[in-house]
Amino acid sequence: QDITNNKFGKGLVNVVAKDSSFSLKFAARFQSLYTGSWDFANNDNLENGVSQFSIRRARLKFEGFAYSPKVTYKIELGLSNRDISGASEFTSNAPRYILDAVLKWNFYENFELWAGQTKLPGNRERVISSANLQTVDRSLVNSEFNVDRDMGFQLHHFTNFGENVIVREALAISQGEGRNVTSENLGGFQYTGRVEILPFGDFDDYSGADLDREETPKLALGVSYDHNVNAVRTRSNSGSYMTTDTGFFETDINTFFVDGIFKYQGFSAMAEYAKRTADIPVALNSDGTPTGRVVEVGDGVNAQAGYLFKNNYEIVTRYTQVTLDEALTGEGVENQYTLGLSKYIVGHKLKVQTDVSWNDYEDNADNSLSYRLQIDIHF
Amino acid sequence: QDITNNKFGKGLVNVVAKDSSFSLKFAARFQSLYTGSWDFANNDNLENGVSQFSIRRARLKFEGFAYSPKVTYKIELGLSNRDISGASEFTSNAPRYILDAVLKWNFYENFELWAGQTKLPGNRERVISSANLQTVDRSLVNSEFNVDRDMGFQLHHFTNFGENVIVREALAISQGEGRNVTSENLGGFQYTGRVEILPFGDFDDYSGADLDREETPKLALGVSYDHNVNAVRTRSNSGSYMTTDTGFFETDINTFFVDGIFKYQGFSAMAEYAKRTADIPVALNSDGTPTGRVVEVGDGVNAQAGYLFKNNYEIVTRYTQVTLDEALTGEGVENQYTLGLSKYIVGHKLKVQTDVSWNDYEDNADNSLSYRLQIDIHF
Amino acid sequence: QDITNNKFGKGLVNVVAKDSSFSLKFAARFQSLYTGSWDFANNDNLENGVSQFSIRRARLKFEGFAYSPKVTYKIELGLSNRDISGASEFTSNAPRYILDAVLKWNFYENFELWAGQTKLPGNRERVISSANLQTVDRSLVNSEFNVDRDMGFQLHHFTNFGENVIVREALAISQGEGRNVTSENLGGFQYTGRVEILPFGDFDDYSGADLDREETPKLALGVSYDHNVNAVRTRSNSGSYMTTDTGFFETDINTFFVDGIFKYQGFSAMAEYAKRTADIPVALNSDGTPTGRVVEVGDGVNAQAGYLFKNNYEIVTRYTQVTLDEALTGEGVENQYTLGLSKYIVGHKLKVQTDVSWNDYEDNADNSLSYRLQIDIHF
Repeated sequence: QDITNNKFGKGLVNVVAKDSSFSLKFAARFQSLYTGSWDFANNDNLENGVSQFSIRRARLKFEGFAYSPKVTYKIELGLSNRDISGASEFTSNAPRYILDAVLKWNFYENFELWAGQTKLPGNRERVISSANLQTVDRSLVNSEFNVDRDMGFQLHHFTNFGENVIVREALAISQGEGRNVTSENLGGFQYTGRVEILPFGDFDDYSGADLDREETPKLALGVSYDHNVNAVRTRSNSGSYMTTDTGFFETDINTFFVDGIFKYQGFSAMAEYAKRTADIPVALNSDGTPTGRVVEVGDGVNAQAGYLFKNNYEIVTRYTQVTLDEALTGEGVENQYTLGLSKYIVGHKLKVQTDVSWNDYEDNADNSLSYRLQIDIHF
Repeated sequence: QDITNNKFGKGLVNVVAKDSSFSLKFAARFQSLYTGSWDFANNDNLENGVSQFSIRRARLKFEGFAYSPKVTYKIELGLSNRDISGASEFTSNAPRYILDAVLKWNFYENFELWAGQTKLPGNRERVISSANLQTVDRSLVNSEFNVDRDMGFQLHHFTNFGENVIVREALAISQGEGRNVTSENLGGFQYTGRVEILPFGDFDDYSGADLDREETPKLALGVSYDHNVNAVRTRSNSGSYMTTDTGFFETDINTFFVDGIFKYQGFSAMAEYAKRTADIPVALNSDGTPTGRVVEVGDGVNAQAGYLFKNNYEIVTRYTQVTLDEALTGEGVENQYTLGLSKYIVGHKLKVQTDVSWNDYEDNADNSLSYRLQIDIHF
Repeated sequence: QDITNNKFGKGLVNVVAKDSSFSLKFAARFQSLYTGSWDFANNDNLENGVSQFSIRRARLKFEGFAYSPKVTYKIELGLSNRDISGASEFTSNAPRYILDAVLKWNFYENFELWAGQTKLPGNRERVISSANLQTVDRSLVNSEFNVDRDMGFQLHHFTNFGENVIVREALAISQGEGRNVTSENLGGFQYTGRVEILPFGDFDDYSGADLDREETPKLALGVSYDHNVNAVRTRSNSGSYMTTDTGFFETDINTFFVDGIFKYQGFSAMAEYAKRTADIPVALNSDGTPTGRVVEVGDGVNAQAGYLFKNNYEIVTRYTQVTLDEALTGEGVENQYTLGLSKYIVGHKLKVQTDVSWNDYEDNADNSLSYRLQIDIHF
């Protein structure tokens, strides 16, 4: 058995070459999730309880630099059945094993060019790793509106103004069909832009919970705009394909996000607003009849706040509202109220998280209650 | 190239952190199998010979401790097509890549709590790693009756009585639908209990062949009982789903095992008895008509013995009988007689195993003969 | 973080045991590809342009020796959706994750016995790793005629004659159904033989481009013959299954290759000729009517040459012709003319490759033009 200087949570293998020609941080992680849920029609009685165990996520991750510290790489692989699901004729009927496979080249000063498949610079909640959430999982606003991962190029840049102010910009051109697609580009490309400002100095703004217990207030604000030209899927680069009698229905889909995160002395708050629009939201056949598919247009808001106690327990509360265009989608307003409790045994690297959520639908008939318990380990 | 202190067979990477915050043993293994088989109706003529090459199993394995030596983990991934087969709507139509993803917490004295997906504490033959068998593969009794892997919680405990006697107990509560299932729990949970006794001291009782050439006789006996509440599959948490006109047919399925292993001076013997029963073994539609699916109720016995020569060749012989309830399943008694020869080049880590089996069915018409040759490497 | 003596391009982990009982080189690699293509009917107008981003290949690779330096192993796993595609009932409906899983035993002098799944000793272009090509991808001759990977045994041998002359021979017996097949052998086995001669001394003859800038002219010539007894697929051990009304159509398929590679002072040239024949090329039903499937009989030639400038830019040109038997397959002659430019930042380990190809079909109506840009990183 060999001895390593690394510590738990810094990778299973973590090496740098003596000649500085490469480095590697290799990590594995998995989440074991128990879910219990009940129908709660009209908030009367808890009925039809169902339960579920699952390995929610399991991942292998390789990152570091290659050739020069200015060229970094990341490969992330999904292992759990939910991670790799989504096989279709568009993915060569193969599971979607690769999450990230991307090279990043710091070619000039504060500029970085990315090439490959990775997350687009969309809403903050999506870009925060699922390993670093302060809740059991991301919100419904994220699952409905996020622009996920795609293949293509990204340009990232940042500027420091004075002592504290940081501004970051990102621009992406991608295929617009989603991750792991092997068929050709349908419709046009997808363009994503994002600007962020951190007015009070740098901090861990892409990680949930104030584990660093910031001594001064820290804030990050961001705004993203995504334009998918002639998109063919109901959620821009994800969701169902809008097939027609002659091929695919194509329409421009736009997604807009505003988000922010605040941390101070163990308190943290995160909020985001998302809105999706489409040129022609109803997918039509060549003769003008509706295909039955509709772009999921609408908006949503998520707000959550947590306080981390000295003993590394955190209480977190979350309010989420998703408002799809009811006339088009037939979906009413959905509100979700969540109360969670986490124990950070070793920060986000070893933690137990649990929450209870009340799902309150416009019609009240579909209301439900759910309980979740998740154990996370991230090397 | 770096130098490692590890030896072949102790993992490809095997490290412990200087600060004792984690350890990792990472290993790969694969089995190359050649099979030849012939029909042997009424034991008359060998006919219709077929052959097959395959990568029988290929695995990646991560294990060690994390945060504290009291918290251990294991991740095992399947790579070969047989390892990962079994995709269905219940696994998100994705291959079943994860075998084990489990955390084990030694929270108090001799108690350990397990959470995640791993093997249930069923029959010994199943729990012995496929890397450590003294035969080319497990017996028909195992394939017919084992309770495999599932997701949930397990509590393990052991007691030492005096110098030599060891008693171990295990209790599991799991979903009862089998590994990698992503859909919700159908029917109720699955409960598994096991008690083991080692009257003559500890030894390598979950590994085939007496590679240690025990100087005194060593014995381990075990009994397991598994109760799957409202199971929906024909072999409890595996096998076909018993679908009906309105959903799933649910019935309690019980599996019982007694097993033992004995080792002394190169000689080893292993035996097990398995029995499956069901409350209502014939799956019925809502109107009481049979669906065609039947719980595979019945019993089986397996007995095998081997002797390891000084030159690390082992001769092994095995007798297996599977007796499903013929009235229900239409399957007659199957006997299998196997004679095998293994060469342990480096114990179970590098070995060549070969065997010939005569499958003797009640009707004699389906009799067959098969020959297998397998090369195993396990880092 | 630990320090490693390894350099970029020599594996992410590269260790040898102090007691020489094993070694491991673990590497990852991926290719990010952008493709643009246009119809170019009658070479008139570029029309119907389509584009595609993809992670073309992504791999994990384990190799080294085990137990003794005379026993070497290789495991290569595919990760990208194109790598793992091809699931069918013959692969247990599971993705084809394993590329190589092979043990090689140098049991006597210059003899080596291989067991498991790996590339057959067919055409050079196929056996050159996709990581070491001087073009963005292999030629059409290779995709049409190569004999790919299979499971079974191979015997390799080499002889040195005098100072410089090296002769290598290889013989393979394999299942003949292709990689990752889990169903039994259909038809008979596949036999492959290959002889190679290197008249002017050893060199990097299984790698594209003269990155070593050979000071004296180096040459390697090879000839392979492959005989697949009662093959059931249209391209021998790959392609569509020739199913009939009663099972599978079986016919002997032969593939013949001649190839050579030459390198001198930055200049390199590679050429190959391939020819496939079949006993009965038209697959017939039991009543003698054609099934519609036809063995892809015909021949092809590929020739390419490149020059590597001092600044590690290489210009490469390639001519490819595929001539399937038109009367049988209905496919006319296809010519492809390719002009490529590569920048080898760190040899084949980090490179950018781009090319433009004109596809010129016999009828001119299907002509097309394509542009490709690929970034490769291989640890």
